[in-house]
Formats: sequence, C-alpha cells, structure tokens
Amino acid sequence: MEQFNPVDHPHRRYNPLTGQWILVSPHRAKRPWQGAQETPSQETLPQHDPDCFLCPGNTRVTGDKNPQYTGTFVFTNDFAALMTDTPDAPENGDPLMRCESARGTSRVICFSPDHSKTLPQLSVPALEEVVKTWQEQTADLGKTYPWVQVFENKGAAMGCSNPHPHGQVWANSFLPNEVAREDVLQREYFAKNGSAMLVDYAQRELKDGSRTVVETEHWIAVVPYWAAWPFETLLLPKTHILRITDLTAEQSSDLAVALKKLTSRYDNLFQCSFPYSMGWHGAPFNGEENGHWQLHAHFYPPLLRSATVRKFMVGYEMLAETQRDLTAEQAAERLRAVSDIHFRQSGE
Amino acid sequence: MEQFNPVDHPHRRYNPLTGQWILVSPHRAKRPWQGAQETPSQETLPQHDPDCFLCPGNTRVTGDKNPQYTGTFVFTNDFAALMTDTPDAPENGDPLMRCESARGTSRVICFSPDHSKTLPQLSVPALEEVVKTWQEQTADLGKTYPWVQVFENKGAAMGCSNPHPHGQVWANSFLPNEVAREDVLQREYFAKNGSAMLVDYAQRELKDGSRTVVETEHWIAVVPYWAAWPFETLLLPKTHILRITDLTAEQSSDLAVALKKLTSRYDNLFQCSFPYSMGWHGAPFNGEENGHWQLHAHFYPPLLRSATVRKFMVGYEMLAETQRDLTAEQAAERLRAVSDIHFRQSGE
Ligand SMILES: O=P(O)(O)O[C@H]1O[C@H](CO)[C@@H](O)[C@H](O)[C@H]1O
Ligand SMILES: O=P(O)(O)O[C@H]1O[C@H](CO)[C@@H](O)[C@H](O)[C@H]1O
Repeated sequence: MEQFNPVDHPHRRYNPLTGQWILVSPHRAKRPWQGAQETPSQETLPQHDPDCFLCPGNTRVTGDKNPQYTGTFVFTNDFAALMTDTPDAPENGDPLMRCESARGTSRVICFSPDHSKTLPQLSVPALEEVVKTWQEQTADLGKTYPWVQVFENKGAAMGCSNPHPHGQVWANSFLPNEVAREDVLQREYFAKNGSAMLVDYAQRELKDGSRTVVETEHWIAVVPYWAAWPFETLLLPKTHILRITDLTAEQSSDLAVALKKLTSRYDNLFQCSFPYSMGWHGAPFNGEENGHWQLHAHFYPPLLRSATVRKFMVGYEMLAETQRDLTAEQAAERLRAVSDIHFRQSGE
Repeated sequence: MEQFNPVDHPHRRYNPLTGQWILVSPHRAKRPWQGAQETPSQETLPQHDPDCFLCPGNTRVTGDKNPQYTGTFVFTNDFAALMTDTPDAPENGDPLMRCESARGTSRVICFSPDHSKTLPQLSVPALEEVVKTWQEQTADLGKTYPWVQVFENKGAAMGCSNPHPHGQVWANSFLPNEVAREDVLQREYFAKNGSAMLVDYAQRELKDGSRTVVETEHWIAVVPYWAAWPFETLLLPKTHILRITDLTAEQSSDLAVALKKLTSRYDNLFQCSFPYSMGWHGAPFNGEENGHWQLHAHFYPPLLRSATVRKFMVGYEMLAETQRDLTAEQAAERLRAVSDIHFRQSGE
C-alpha cells in the first residue's frame, strides 16, 4: 500500500492553541481556476484626503475635529460596540437562553497622518511609534479591563472601507471566546510539560525552518503548522514574554523591523496591498499567574491565488471544518520566495 | 442605577450547541451607514446557459458530459477536497505538530435543470425532490462514512461562482470540528436533563414566538437566541428526529413547504437573491447511541443592511469573539414583516 505523504494526501492538522482541526487538501491546489482573475488596482492615494474622517484636521461624523497630528492618533470610536457603563444583567440560570452583560470600550488608532501609506510603507521609526501606541493603549486599558484586543482590519476584503492606515483597540470586561480557549489550552500544556506552548513551538520552528517567513534578531514569523487561512502567519518573540507591554526597548524596535518585513512580503506576493486582519494576544489582565501565556500576533489574510481571488470560508467550513488547499510549508515557501523589501520601494 | 435591558445594552449570549459566546451590540444598529449602498442586480438568467458546467447536456472541465436530467442530478466533484483511498498517517504523538489522515468524497447536487431558478423559485414538488435527494445521498454515504455533510453555498458573497441552483455533499472518515462540538454539548445536555437540547429548545420557541420566522405543520424556523450572523436561522422539526433519513413522507413534504417559505422571506427582505451557506446536521453514522441528537439545518446569510451591505466577520471577530449589531428578536421581526411568497412570484 502507498505510504502517507502530506504533500499529496488530504489530512487534518491540529491547532493546539484552539483545539480545532484543519482539513488540508494539498492536491486541490492543482485544480484549474475558473473564477475571476483581474489586475490589481495600482491606484495611488493622496497624502491627505479632505473627505477622510481619519486625516489630520478633518471633521468626523460626530462633528469632532481631528488634531493636526504628526505621528499616531487615538480616539474613542464614535459608534463603539461596547459601552463603559452597561448595568449587570440578572443571572437567569437558563441553559438554553443564557445571557450576561458586557462592558468595554473601543478606540481607533491612526497609524500615520499620511493617508496614502500602509504599514509596510511606513519607516521603521514610524512603525516603532505604532508599536509604542499599541503598548500604551494596552497598558492604559489593562488597568480597568481583563482583556485588551489590539487589531487591524486592512483592505476592502476585510470590511475596511477607509484606506487611511489605522487599527483598533477594544477592551472587554470578559475574556472573549478565542482568548478563553487559548488560555485553557496553554494552561493545560504548561501543566503537562512545564513550559509555555508557544515558547516551545518557536524553538521548534527556529530549528526546522520550513515554515519560517521572517526571522529577525528577536522575532520569528511562521506559517503555523495548523494554519487555516492560505497565507496565515504567527508572529512570536524568541524569548518568553507575557504581554506587548513587557517588551524591552530593543525587542520593541526589532518588532518594527519584523513587521515591515512581514507586511512587505505579503504585499509582494501578489503585488498588491495585501488585505488581512491582524491582532495581538498576550496574557490577560486578570490578576492570575499567567506563565503559560506567550505573546503573539495572528495575521489572517484572505487571498488565495491572486490579488483578486480569495479563499471563502463558507459552507463546509462553517458547518463542518476549516479546509485549505495548500500546505503550511508550501505557503511559507512562496512567502520566502519574494523580497522583504516592498515592491513600491525597491529601486528607491 | 439603570436596569439592564437587552434591547439597549451590549451583552453576550451563549450558544449551547457550540459552547461559544456572541457579543450583541444592539445600540450599534443606530449608527449611520457610510459604506456602499447599491441597487441589487435584477438580472434575469436564461433557463439554459451553454457555458454552465451544471446545465443538462453540457460538458464539464474534465470532458464528462451531463445527462439530459429533468429533476435533480448528482455527480462526484471533479476536484474533490477529499479522496476515498488516502493511506493512514503514522501516529506521531507530537503535541505541537499533530496530523492525521483524512478520507472521504465530495459530490455536487444540481437542484434543478433550470439554470435561472433558486430554491425559493422552485415548485413544492421540485423542492420535495431536492429533499429526497439529500436523504438518498445521506443514506448512501452514511453506509461508509461516519459523517455526511449536506450543504449549499448560494451567491457570489458566499464564494459561489455559478448561479445554477446546486449544493454539495461531503462525506468524512472523521467527525469534523463543528459536529464534534455539537455532539459533546448535546450529549452533556441529555445526560443532565434527560431530553434532547434542540427538542426542548423548539418547544420553548414554539411557545415564545418572538424569534419565530416560519412555522409549518411539522417545522419551525427561528433566529436562534444565540444567532451569530445578522439573519441566521435554525430550522427544526417539531418532534425528535435523529437524521434527515428518518423523516416520514409527510414531514419530508412539509419540509419542502418550510424551505420555500423561509428562502422566500430571505429573498424578500432586501428584494434580491439572498446569499447564504446552509446545511444539515443530524446524528453521525458512528454506531453510537445518538438519542441526544436532533436533526437541524443552519442558515448562515452574510447580509446586514441591504442587498449589498454585508456583515464582515473580521478583526475582533476572528481574534476575540463574534459580534452582531441587532438582537435575534429584531432580526426575526424583520423577517416576519415580509411576505413568505417570493417577490418575483407575487401577482403570478
Ligand atoms: O466547492 P467549491 O464551490 O469550489 O468551493 C466553495 O465551497 C467550498 C466548501 O464550502 C469551500 O471550501 C471553498 O472555499 C468555496 O469557494
Ligand atoms: O469597526 P468597523 O471598522 O466599523 O467594522 C469592522 O470591524 C469590526 C471589528 O472587527 C467588525 O465588527 C465589523 O463587522 C467590521 O465591518
């Protein structure tokens, strides 16, 4: 009988952070593509757009005026999904219709006054300021809330209608699903192995190399063994760090370098502004012993075959299980094959 | 202090089938919408499209020719995500890089020879044949595989590039994530309460009515208390049924009626062909005592505000928790407010 071979044979991989499996169908990448295949838009944006509600000096929907900011700029979302003063809901003990009150806040983080730039196009010092802002926001909101979610939705494919470079930070009075799952599974791993799961994992990937996309002095980005999205990556510090607020000055500066390289490779893959959702997970501010946690960022980009052909997580994925058409190793190889200098900057 | 009120206050609801929470931000529906707001396409399609690889008599990519079918038509997917003969993967016992072999098959189910129709536009007898085909496929594949996933991806928003009315059936040598979760949680509920979770739930909803969208003699469709997608529904039989293959002739015919009404309400909501992924969950074919299972169909439609404005499950949702902008009760009310006769059929 033929021997199992993960490059040809459908298989499932286990995500130890979430406890979920991913169906990998590597032979599917060979099928012809019949869907749309368009040239990516090469439009250049103005550095200041008078209609953009994030540009310096402009007025927002609520009538508030943005300052003439020169670095990053943070404000509370005018239509936040959470409020700080929601009263408690009575515990109803109903197993079928269970509800609890939720408190929190939601802020917008403008990465740069320049409307035309995205993260990979910012200078390393500008990216250092983004990192610093993430740290300040996390520290500030972590004083009040057990969970602070820093994230960025980039590109129309990820529901972002404004190209002005920006992310968000939401704070929660509760541990959200994804975080609660990671908390439990990292805790179990720590109890069993006496070490933090993602610290061990980074060590394995540093030795292996087949899934590595970017490596800097203090950071490594890999297409994780259990990646769900075609070009998903996991960005990890090389040492054990609980939270983004715990990084040394050196690790923070080097993070700016790693971010620039990773997002440049993304844009270079299909020569477009690569859409994704990214965000940070670190130890919650819940007053517990959190040695099982390791700081990390997830990048979830939807593109599959080109600037205009994305992976749809629909039907089978929603009802049964996430499915992907190429292996993590194949995806990493393709991201390594492109330059880590942005295609619009080469030659400059 | 103000009293908690689920119509005004952000809260979380618990999904007892998956063990996940959903963040509900009802006040957010009040925010002005700045995104795209287009007129839905009213294009009419031909009944036969010579370029469609699903129409009767046409030739597919592989060179196979479709028969001149008159009802439903099933064939094995030319680029299936699973293969029937994958060899076993060796158990590696690696907690960080765990993998197992996956076997199965994947078939396409054409619902009708008429290229221009979608489910709500088919006659009740034609829908009865669709139900019968789902039953036959489930019975057939259930002989070999523990899990048979029947589903439909409808509309470009759900990754469907061909408007010809069709769905799919995938069979698996394993219990996929979503099914495994539902299995565990329904089993726990059964052990604790001595009754099946979704049988109890249907009874509660039949009495309550505030989340009901469609009720027929044998079926009820509700926006579940824990809905994630804006207009998500859960379709349930009124009695305890393990699998779609266990329905009586009467329940099967009445299912055709329920499907026609539910999908017509969907199309009527924004006067468009309403995109969604839908699919069936029932007891696995795993030889176990499955009294805790109750047959049900999930409908996951992405639209939020109009035919062209969808909900994006991105950033916060991917990294933290599903979030919605209107309550389940508000969504049900809107679906009840439109007719259950399709807008293109009224007046006929
Ligand atoms: O099978 P299709 O229609 O080619 O593909 C579609 O449905 C599949 C099953 O839900 C998904 O895996 C694909 O991402 C989607 O594009
Ligand atoms: O906050 P925004 O940019 O208005 O909205 C976007 O991000 C949010 C957080 O990920 C999502 O809930 C919305 O569906 C998405 O459109």
